[in-house]
Parts: sequence; C-alpha cells; structure tokens
Amino acid sequence: MSKGRLEAFSDGVLAIIITIMVLELAVPHEPTLEALLRLWPVFISYVLSFANIGIYWNNHHHLLQGSRVVDGRVLWANLHLLFWLSLFPFATAWMGENDFAAVPVAIYGVVAVMAAIAYFLLVRALVRCQPADTHLAEAIGSDAKGKISPLIYALAVPIALLPVPFAPFVAFAMYVVVALIWVVPDVRIERTIAR
Amino acid sequence: MSKGRLEAFSDGVLAIIITIMVLELAVPHEPTLEALLRLWPVFISYVLSFANIGIYWNNHHHLLQGSRVVDGRVLWANLHLLFWLSLFPFATAWMGENDFAAVPVAIYGVVAVMAAIAYFLLVRALVRCQPADTHLAEAIGSDAKGKISPLIYALAVPIALLPVPFAPFVAFAMYVVVALIWVVPDVRIERTIAR
Amino acid sequence: MSKGRLEAFSDGVLAIIITIMVLELAVPHEPTLEALLRLWPVFISYVLSFANIGIYWNNHHHLLQGSRVVDGRVLWANLHLLFWLSLFPFATAWMGENDFAAVPVAIYGVVAVMAAIAYFLLVRALVRCQPADTHLAEAIGSDAKGKISPLIYALAVPIALLPVPFAPFVAFAMYVVVALIWVVPDVRIERTIAR
Amino acid sequence: MSKGRLEAFSDGVLAIIITIMVLELAVPHEPTLEALLRLWPVFISYVLSFANIGIYWNNHHHLLQGSRVVDGRVLWANLHLLFWLSLFPFATAWMGENDFAAVPVAIYGVVAVMAAIAYFLLVRALVRCQPADTHLAEAIGSDAKGKISPLIYALAVPIALLPVPFAPFVAFAMYVVVALIWVVPDVRIERTIAR
Repeated sequence: MSKGRLEAFSDGVLAIIITIMVLELAVPHEPTLEALLRLWPVFISYVLSFANIGIYWNNHHHLLQGSRVVDGRVLWANLHLLFWLSLFPFATAWMGENDFAAVPVAIYGVVAVMAAIAYFLLVRALVRCQPADTHLAEAIGSDAKGKISPLIYALAVPIALLPVPFAPFVAFAMYVVVALIWVVPDVRIERTIAR
Repeated sequence: MSKGRLEAFSDGVLAIIITIMVLELAVPHEPTLEALLRLWPVFISYVLSFANIGIYWNNHHHLLQGSRVVDGRVLWANLHLLFWLSLFPFATAWMGENDFAAVPVAIYGVVAVMAAIAYFLLVRALVRCQPADTHLAEAIGSDAKGKISPLIYALAVPIALLPVPFAPFVAFAMYVVVALIWVVPDVRIERTIAR
Repeated sequence: MSKGRLEAFSDGVLAIIITIMVLELAVPHEPTLEALLRLWPVFISYVLSFANIGIYWNNHHHLLQGSRVVDGRVLWANLHLLFWLSLFPFATAWMGENDFAAVPVAIYGVVAVMAAIAYFLLVRALVRCQPADTHLAEAIGSDAKGKISPLIYALAVPIALLPVPFAPFVAFAMYVVVALIWVVPDVRIERTIAR
Repeated sequence: MSKGRLEAFSDGVLAIIITIMVLELAVPHEPTLEALLRLWPVFISYVLSFANIGIYWNNHHHLLQGSRVVDGRVLWANLHLLFWLSLFPFATAWMGENDFAAVPVAIYGVVAVMAAIAYFLLVRALVRCQPADTHLAEAIGSDAKGKISPLIYALAVPIALLPVPFAPFVAFAMYVVVALIWVVPDVRIERTIAR
C-alpha cells in the first residue's frame, strides 16, 4: 500500500486544523489597541497551538519519509492521531477565552497527552510494517523527546488544578517548554550543520 | 483520464469535512468540568462521524488504489458521494445539540443511507470503466459489509422514530455497530497478519 | 513552469469552497421535521452551488489535463477565477436565507457571470502559452456550452429583478438549466460510450 | 529531504487562508442592494487580502521551483511565514468591519510587515541549504520588489495613525500600491513575452 495518499490526507487535515484555530481569534468590535490587547490570552494560546501542530506536521513528515510502506493498522493509527489533534482548536479556544483558568488549562494538557500517545502508537504501527531493511527504528533511535513530552504534559495536568495562585500558568509554562524542546534544537542543529 | 486529481480533490473535501465538524463543539463559556461534560452528546456524535468519514476515506483509498482509470461518470459519482458526506457535519451537529432526539437521529441515518448508496454507485461506475485485466470487481468481492451497512442504517431510521423510550438511542447504537464492523476487523486482521 | 502546484492549489481552494457552503446550513434549534423543512431554500441553493463548483472542478481538471505548461498569466487568470468562485458561498447563503428574493437571486447570477468570464480568460491564457503541438484549442473546440452559459446567466439577472410575481424563481430555474446542461450530457455520453 | 510535502502543506494552508476570509463577508439580513453595498469596506479588504495571499502563493511557488532541497530550518522558516499569513483573515476582517479605522489599518500593516520579513527569512534559509550548482540566489537577484514592499508597509503603519483626516485611507492606498507592484508587472511581462 502506497503512502502518498496517507501523507496528502494528513497534510490536508493538519493544514485545516492549524488554520481554523485562527477563526477563534474573534474580531473585536471596537477599533482600538485596548480591544486588541484584551485578546492576548487567545493569541498566546494560538501561538502555542500553531507551534504544536507545526511540530506534529514536522515529525509526521520525517516519520513517513523514513517509511516505505503503510498498512491498514497505520491508516487507523494515523486517523486516531488526527482525531486528538483535531481537538486542539477546541482546547486552545477554551483555554484562551477563559484567561488560562485551571480546568481548561488542564484539559489542554489531557488533549496533548492523548495526541502524544496516539503519535507513539503510530510510530509503533509504522515500524512494525516496514520491510526488514528499512531501518526506521534505528532512525527514530531512543526518541528521548518523544518520551519526555507526554510525561511533562501528564505532570502539568494535576499542577494546573492545584489550589494555589498561578498554578495554571505554571502548567502553561510547561506546555511552552515542551514546544521549545522541539523547535529550538531543530533550528540550532541545522544552524550548526550549515556552519 | 488519470485518477490523481480525483484522489487529491476527494482527500481535500474529506479532510475539510472531518475537521470542520469539530467547529460544532461550541466552546463553553464557563471554565468548569460540568460545562465540558454537558457537551458529551455533541462529543459522542463527533467521535462517531469522525470514524465514519475515516472509514469512507479508508475505503475510497483502497477502491482507487485498485483502479487504473476514471471517466466522466466516475467524476460525477464521486461528487455525488462527496455531496452526501458533506451533510455529515450538519447531521452530526443537529443530533448532538438535541441530545439524540428522535428526528435528528433518524435524519442522521437518512444521510448515512444516501452516502452508502452513493458509494455503491461509485464502485459500480469504477468497475465499469476499468480495462478488462484490472480485477477490481474480484478485489471487491461479495462486499458483505458494503451491503449490510446501508440495511442497518435503513432499519435504524424508523426505529429512531418509534414512540417508545430510548428508541433513538437504539438507533444510535446501530450506527455505532456499523462503524465497529468496519474499524475492528481491519485492525484485527492486520494484527493477525503481523503475527 | 510545471502545472502540478497550480492543480494542487486549485483543488485545495475548490474543495474548501464546496465544503464551507454547508456551514451556512444553520443547525435548527428544534429537533422537528418542520424545522428541517424550513431550511429547504438554503438546501436547494446549496445543491445548486455544489453542482456548479463541481462543474468548474470537472472542467478545470479537463482543461489542465489538455495543457502541458503554465506561465505567470495563467497563474493570475487562475487566481482571478478562484476569486469569483470564492464568492459562491456568500451568494448561495444570501439567496437561500432570503427565500429567493429578487436582489440576492440577481447577485447570484452576477457572480456566476463573472466566474464564467474568468474561466473564459483562463482558457485563453492557457491556449496562448501551450507549445505549438499541444492541440488544446482543438480539444476545446467551439465550446458551445462555455459560450451559452454566461449568456443565460446574464439574461437571468434582469429577469430576477422584473417586478412580476415569481420572476426570481424563473431566474433560479435558468441557473438550474445551466447546471443541467453540464451535468446531464456528461453522464449520458459516458453511458453511451460504456455501451 | 524532499520538498514535495512542504509544498503540499503550504498549498493547503494558503488555500484555506484565502478561502476562509470570505466567511467574514457576513450575509446581510435584508435582501436589498443597500444592505449589500454597506459591505463595501469588508469586500474591498477581502479583494486586497485575496491578492496578497495570491502573491505569496505565486512567489512561494517560484521560490520552491528554483530550489532542489529543503532542511529543518526551511521547514520552520516556512511555518513562521504561514503563521503571519494566517493572521491576514483576522486583520482583514477587523479593518473591513471598522470602515478603515486607524488602528485596524495600522495593524494590517504590521501583519504585512511581519509576513514580508518571514518571507525574507525563508528565502535566506532556502538559499543557504541548496547545493552549490542550484543558482537560486542568482535567480532571485537583487529582489528589489521584495525589499521595497516591507518598507512601504512599515511606512504606512505610522501614516495610518496620523491624526489627520483620511490618514488611514492613505495607508490603505499604500497597501494597494504594493499589491499592484507585484500583480501588474507579472501580467505585463508575460504579455510582452507572448508577443
């Protein structure tokens, strides 16, 4: 089974998810800077989720580039991942529109954990169906980032719900850290290679 | 006539259908777990429809992989299928927002029956236009699942409208059964092959 | 300049246009058949526009299949066509939500005329840039349907505005006739060939 | 690393951005020409942004056609560009719905400047990772239009905020000039070549 349409369909869904999130940035009624600045929690949430979906697209791209074939299990594992990613616009909007209240921040973490688990299952399904000489498993390696990310997310969920001031902001900061773990080294490694 | 753009256009439409359904998950105003849990009928409907569109994408993928050419009839049969699938977001939202009331549940079944018929017509149009040595018809076989699914849907429509308690829930359960008929064996067969 | 990305981008835009129109089918608040039936003008408008965008995709597909190269003029002519097609969701919703009132029905015709002109300009731009041996012009032929369609639309616009009863419905019927001119022969010819 | 999926994902995101902007053209409640004409600021803003996203797609197309490979930096530089372009629907709607008030017009310019800078960074990232014999840098040349556009945008932002009558309209006219700089010569050069 060829992987072309799996990539095309995933690109389509990810492109829509990353773009419809901006529809939640409700246009303010007044044409003032104050009205715009009041949107900052929604905007910051949008930036984080844009980065997260971008990271997933990036990793998905690399993962499938290292694969040669897909099977029916992979198709379903991929749809399962897309399902959890499709909940990001909802979780992003709920968190942003409630100024980082505890429950929405925690739910954002739950969606992120589920997406990370779904990605892990997709990796396993892909590795399992490759011909013996594909070396996808070697290319993935120990995947330290893939293992630590869901752990940080899972830790952030109860932290968001702690009855202390600023607890949800600590959880949100942990989400930002996870995103930086993925974006920063990528860019830095490439810069080093370029030199 | 090449099939590449037919696949690309269908992937695009299916990707959009599967993703815009999540826009119906209206973000609650209060940042509480209760407000979130009140969304369960909408969420459950979303899960079902996500699976259904996923099943159609999956089957469409296999169907076109087994085909070598398409003609004008196939283009129109495909658009006809996409038309009925495009009504899923509407039917899903109406069913979910009315807590599985009888009429919306029945209408969901009507849309599902029409989509199943449209798929059946697409299969016939594709089989008819393949060169003699393509063996698409053999690959499809008796297509028991493709025949039993619309029957179950058609049965569920009047059941949803029965004036007895929980009738719509029985109909909804039948929709879930149809989805499971498609997803479960796929995954199980692949697992068996993998062993 | 290769035509692949032009096709991919157009497929994406057309897929989104054809699908977001269904978002205008506002989900009724009551779970009754009466509430659903009250949507019929919006639904009929949606069916017409779905067919129209489908016809454009179909023709676009054939047009580019007969072309070998594209140039900068073609890119802009194509964007110009997509611009007018992108107004179909607006015109469709306005017409449907106002029960086929005169002005919205006329504006729908204006959008349809402009799209037809834009398509004509795209055909000319494509023919002009093909190498001498491509025979795209011959493949297009006299293009009777492409010439009569904008004429019927242009005639329907003033008819919709006539101060007599049912004038907008006559105009709407003319739009339906144009769509049938494109869909019916396609299907019939293919059936004949199949025999 | 192949560039195919980068193009496909970018096409998807740009197609969605260019199309969802039309959702901001809220359907008027009354079926009258006056109600339609009251939408002119939103419509004019839509036309400008449609042209701008079209210009970016066009340039992106040419840029990647001149490139042979992409690396991780390019993926992130591309996502960074798509991020700023994704804010165009918001800026377009805010500007249009407030009849070209000063602050929204200025913010539109800010988004346009940021997108232009992001495009500049993408060009640099692409040039850097090409093999020695690709000549992408030579193909881009001095890129006078690419340098003057952000300057005009950056100048328009403070102009929009000047406390004199019609200042925002002057800024808006400057945005239109930038778009014409890109669209007009393209079409004219191609016409000259065709002769």
